[in-house]
Amino acid sequence: MDILDDVLLKVKPADDENKRLDESIKNVIEKIKYHLNNIDADPILVGSVAKGTHLKNPDVDIFIRYSTHYTREFIEKNTLEIGSMVLENPVKRYAEHPYVHGYFNGFEFDIVPCYRIEDSKQKITAVDRTPFHTEYIKKNMNEEMKDQVRILKQFLKGIGIYGAEAKIEGFSGYLSELLILKFGTFMDLIKSASRWRAYKIITIEKINQKNLYEKFKNPLIVIDPVDPKRNVASALSLTNYSMFIHASREFLKNPSMKFFFPSEPKAGELDGRDTKILHIHLKKPDLVDDILYPQIRKFEKTLLNNLDEFQVMRYYYYVDSEIHIIIESTILDLPNVEIRTGPPVWSKNSEDFLKKWEKKALSGPYIKDGRFYALIPRERRSMEENILRIINSNSIGKDLDKIKKEIKIERGTENINKIELTKFLKSKFPWEY
Amino acid sequence: MDILDDVLLKVKPADDENKRLDESIKNVIEKIKYHLNNIDADPILVGSVAKGTHLKNPDVDIFIRYSTHYTREFIEKNTLEIGSMVLENPVKRYAEHPYVHGYFNGFEFDIVPCYRIEDSKQKITAVDRTPFHTEYIKKNMNEEMKDQVRILKQFLKGIGIYGAEAKIEGFSGYLSELLILKFGTFMDLIKSASRWRAYKIITIEKINQKNLYEKFKNPLIVIDPVDPKRNVASALSLTNYSMFIHASREFLKNPSMKFFFPSEPKAGELDGRDTKILHIHLKKPDLVDDILYPQIRKFEKTLLNNLDEFQVMRYYYYVDSEIHIIIESTILDLPNVEIRTGPPVWSKNSEDFLKKWEKKALSGPYIKDGRFYALIPRERRSMEENILRIINSNSIGKDLDKIKKEIKIERGTENINKIELTKFLKSKFPWEY
Repeated sequence: MDILDDVLLKVKPADDENKRLDESIKNVIEKIKYHLNNIDADPILVGSVAKGTHLKNPDVDIFIRYSTHYTREFIEKNTLEIGSMVLENPVKRYAEHPYVHGYFNGFEFDIVPCYRIEDSKQKITAVDRTPFHTEYIKKNMNEEMKDQVRILKQFLKGIGIYGAEAKIEGFSGYLSELLILKFGTFMDLIKSASRWRAYKIITIEKINQKNLYEKFKNPLIVIDPVDPKRNVASALSLTNYSMFIHASREFLKNPSMKFFFPSEPKAGELDGRDTKILHIHLKKPDLVDDILYPQIRKFEKTLLNNLDEFQVMRYYYYVDSEIHIIIESTILDLPNVEIRTGPPVWSKNSEDFLKKWEKKALSGPYIKDGRFYALIPRERRSMEENILRIINSNSIGKDLDKIKKEIKIERGTENINKIELTKFLKSKFPWEY
Repeated sequence: MDILDDVLLKVKPADDENKRLDESIKNVIEKIKYHLNNIDADPILVGSVAKGTHLKNPDVDIFIRYSTHYTREFIEKNTLEIGSMVLENPVKRYAEHPYVHGYFNGFEFDIVPCYRIEDSKQKITAVDRTPFHTEYIKKNMNEEMKDQVRILKQFLKGIGIYGAEAKIEGFSGYLSELLILKFGTFMDLIKSASRWRAYKIITIEKINQKNLYEKFKNPLIVIDPVDPKRNVASALSLTNYSMFIHASREFLKNPSMKFFFPSEPKAGELDGRDTKILHIHLKKPDLVDDILYPQIRKFEKTLLNNLDEFQVMRYYYYVDSEIHIIIESTILDLPNVEIRTGPPVWSKNSEDFLKKWEKKALSGPYIKDGRFYALIPRERRSMEENILRIINSNSIGKDLDKIKKEIKIERGTENINKIELTKFLKSKFPWEY
């Protein structure tokens, strides 16, 4: 398919880029070896560059694989020291444990500590399994397949679901590689995916498939060939799994570069839909995405679970220098009364209910079907007041809790980024803009 | 208790009234006998006057008890003819079968046909059992108890729950008599009632009480001593059962003539509660209450089951020359869009959903958790439009259906009777005004 050739042309690194990349890697590894000196550890190239499935301008992953005799503190500290000496503009970053991000010859590098283990099942830290993944793909994947992986990765990027990190909840690079190993080509994969249903189980190596869904409870289950206890697609959300199915079908019906390289929507404004918009925003705290995004989602969920009366229709969030949550609802102001359901007439508490409301109720207390009711003054009428109460009486995430006093709430779209606003209002698929 | 003496003084017919009544009854019965001529039938006095539990200005019930050899058509026609000859201003009325209502010497009379049966279990028409009820009370009730019944009846009238007819759904006269037979006095009855709970079973004659609730499923079960298969309280609604319990407790706490002779509330207007009022009204059709009221309730229920989105808080109805339904809600106008939930992404129907909405949706179609959704233009925004659709696509009762085109719907309280409006807005108990 011409389109796929065009995609590959755009994303596959040219020979000269790869040559410069190889030299830089060789150089970095030699420098690390020099600094390791007598320490029982060896630097290895892992990840997409090692596997040859990388796109242009890749992030190069170098792991320093230490003997298990060293403590975790030591291997972390030692890696940070070496990384800072070898790379330009080094920055300490955190995943499960710290690593160094920096540059060399214009390429981006991550230098990460891990343990040298015999079998991936013996892993001590989260990344100890990565070298085994790298080996498995290198051993099983031919050149043609590698290009198919590149096309797939760009497709996933284009439709917004590439990356297993908390921010995206999509497909990891390794998952993309396994899918091409299983289905052979990008086209065969998406032909299959277009027919996937509620839950899908994919195995590469032979394995007893019984009870896999009960075990993993994920929409897509792809058993890791180097560790059958693990689902490589465990980070994939149901929304993004469905998105992949839908995008596959749409691409097959109407193939277009738009799936790989979508356009940004044009900045827009509220159409005449006559709903109410509430905009909540607060300064983005200094946190890595994998910690920040789950907290944003928790915050959003806590809000929405408590706003039923306002008839929230849809919601959305985006992050720039601030975290923004947008709520679209039918109502922003409730009447200044509410129905209070009291106890059954024959209950012991009914006396308390009557005493409490006999003077203050605007209607009742009255009886309906064996219960007391009253129409009483409402404490909080506006969505803003209700949100403040929710925020003050619930945790909205460990780190967001610290700054929850600075939350700004306003009506209307004035301070919403107009492109994000359009994305929310239109809610089209990326290839449709 | 002085109050109860005062009540009795007000409601018990004086001796001279009873004397005039007895003479009028004797007169009417003789006239009926004369007209019956050779027909195998006999007129008998039944109901509260026969039992001596009547209040002032009672309705006198005379049954003409026919041999079961006569057809239903014959006994109905014959009774109507005789009744029309005997009474002044005779009017044909309908319950299960027709009867004559009219006047004699200034007293109100009903002349009703029934069959002469040996045992109340053999009943052919709904009223054949009535003479047995009359007999049972006459045999078992002394003069003191009869006065207690009068007090109880007035109490039930005062709190608005006297009468088993569909309009009231309350306590019948016979039920009042059985309750006094069981508990002896009005005070002992309401002391007991103040402690009644969710469901209450009362038996007068000995009977196996097992499974009675499963059999009757009514909030109050009072087994008919002349027909153990029947619950005398079957017409009593849960609301009115609870009302009786509550009123009993309140009267015991704070005895007052207000329970027996409540004041009308003063005409009022909407307080500052800031809810929305919708007023639906249509000409009252020419129907007996027992047919009209169930249809009004069905109409109301049909409406309210379909208006969730408007957040209806409370509703009310009253009848004068028109049927009036009042709805109090949070919203009268919805946004001009609504969320449409589509099929799962992997479902066969998803293609149809996409095709239907891809151009017309204001937002989406988009995917959330494995399903398609779209924000689509709303067909009917106002509660009025929605009510018209509900009325046009549902039966609102056999007779109301015929006149549903004449239904008027308006916002605000302008054409609502101001006393009824106050009753609705305040929703106090009758003794509280």
